Amino acid sequence: MSKIISIPETAAWLKENDNYLILTHRRPDGDTLGCAGALAQGLREIGKNAYILVNPETTPRYLPCTQDYVASDDFNFDHIIAVDTATVDLFTNNALEYKDNIALCIDHHNSNTNYARLLCIDASCGACGELIYDILIALNGKISEKTAGHLYVALSTDTGCFSYGNTTADTHAIAAKIILAGAPSKELNKKLFRTKTRGRIKIEGMITSNMEFHFDGKVAIAMITRDMMLLSEAIEDDIDDIANLPGSVDGVGIGITIRELNSNSDCKISVRTTPPYDAHAVCEKFGGGGHTTAAGASINKTVNEIKNELLEILKTEVH
Amino acid sequence: MSKIISIPETAAWLKENDNYLILTHRRPDGDTLGCAGALAQGLREIGKNAYILVNPETTPRYLPCTQDYVASDDFNFDHIIAVDTATVDLFTNNALEYKDNIALCIDHHNSNTNYARLLCIDASCGACGELIYDILIALNGKISEKTAGHLYVALSTDTGCFSYGNTTADTHAIAAKIILAGAPSKELNKKLFRTKTRGRIKIEGMITSNMEFHFDGKVAIAMITRDMMLLSEAIEDDIDDIANLPGSVDGVGIGITIRELNSNSDCKISVRTTPPYDAHAVCEKFGGGGHTTAAGASINKTVNEIKNELLEILKTEVH
Repeated sequence: MSKIISIPETAAWLKENDNYLILTHRRPDGDTLGCAGALAQGLREIGKNAYILVNPETTPRYLPCTQDYVASDDFNFDHIIAVDTATVDLFTNNALEYKDNIALCIDHHNSNTNYARLLCIDASCGACGELIYDILIALNGKISEKTAGHLYVALSTDTGCFSYGNTTADTHAIAAKIILAGAPSKELNKKLFRTKTRGRIKIEGMITSNMEFHFDGKVAIAMITRDMMLLSEAIEDDIDDIANLPGSVDGVGIGITIRELNSNSDCKISVRTTPPYDAHAVCEKFGGGGHTTAAGASINKTVNEIKNELLEILKTEVH
Repeated sequence: MSKIISIPETAAWLKENDNYLILTHRRPDGDTLGCAGALAQGLREIGKNAYILVNPETTPRYLPCTQDYVASDDFNFDHIIAVDTATVDLFTNNALEYKDNIALCIDHHNSNTNYARLLCIDASCGACGELIYDILIALNGKISEKTAGHLYVALSTDTGCFSYGNTTADTHAIAAKIILAGAPSKELNKKLFRTKTRGRIKIEGMITSNMEFHFDGKVAIAMITRDMMLLSEAIEDDIDDIANLPGSVDGVGIGITIRELNSNSDCKISVRTTPPYDAHAVCEKFGGGGHTTAAGASINKTVNEIKNELLEILKTEVH
């Protein structure tokens, strides 16, 4: 069970101690990596040794957040800090050996499992980066241009460039301060939000132009076949968040993506719903499950077989 | 020639006078309509009569900005205010009779032609809504929930939900304040940025899946035929900003859209470039023109003829 500590207490603890190893979560996003980069940079600026445990799943777009701080194998750390990581299940394989030895966790997930000795948590933050900002200000009174850049990645990516429901007045107020501090927001916005790879634009085009609408447009079904992947030359990174696509169409309450994985008819479906529809209930019928608004299942059938079964099932689900 | 006045002077003038008719620009966007709504609402809150001249091109998504303030034919106004409108060429047809009689223009375009007697201008504002916010605060010390909602539409749409290069620290600082004042940012973000019409998603899919890349991916060409419009059931509103699409692909320096307008081979091309490429130079060869980064031309040829001519011309333009 963690001891919950405040932002000033967290800053005081960071000031007292030294030699920090910072952990990020599995399938790392801009928030966990931006937080790690900002914390390492901010700690170094007050004379501390701070390094980040390499996260082997880091994608190229987020490498600049952490590349200057990666710990070498012989780094003799005294304290381990996990950022934006709700549970040890989200630890990367190379971090698992430390799971019972986390000194401090800084997080914004309500679901945090209290695995660290000290926990600084604020679930009202849209991005964990907002909490890191407050801690660094408490620690040093200001933030540098470099720290501001990492924090901008954290804030902007976790809020979908300030468009998701988790964006608050505080998110914008902190964005204003880190842009004033020198965060290269124009360049980062262009790179993170306004540029698509050619593979992404091709596969997205194929998916949307073939998207099917059923039940008066309440259901949208997107299909991704292996042929489409080959033809578009898209890579996995390109279809990262594609499951959100069918649900983004006006009037759609149930957005379904059927993905063909190989030639053995191994497929997976992703279902995204808005109330009153239940994504879990749909996926449960295929042996899968998840949350009310987001669920999935693995199915050994052809894309068309799955689509037809889904349409049968949905007859009772869609009112 | 306009007399340039400051924000406090603008607020003082608004306080002194009464019976305002507010004008918005042709092809109205969220900034001009959000500014008009916020100004009308803010003026009414200090007891003034303020109405907006109906803009016949207002699209459904922005109707809530102005519908409570539309002037009836018998409104006896004393002063006309134009918002976010750089030149009288941008006046709607029903506003043209007033073009020599504009008392005040509030604008953020450097290209403002000084057509109003008084001009309050700040070209450093990402959205004109930022300037309206400052004026309303100078006028009344606070903004209401309703005013905040209109201003959020202005700020967020003109900055592409805080992603375009015109977004500044001030934009975010004002966004923070209007969200605190009660702007329904979550609902507005979902409606304005996270939902696409079925027509839009279909036509975008057709365009992107057929997009052509030339000269090592430096040139992207999108084609929109009448057949695609019919098949996708897209309306004009759906392809509003589609000219930005080819240029949004990683590595593309020249993004070209060829649009077939009718069965007589009337087409228009839109060219968007990033330095060192010159959109104007390309369009000039077809008798069109524009700016270095955005230009266009009208051409009476088939889509394929235009594409082939473009590829010939680009041989000398693309290095």
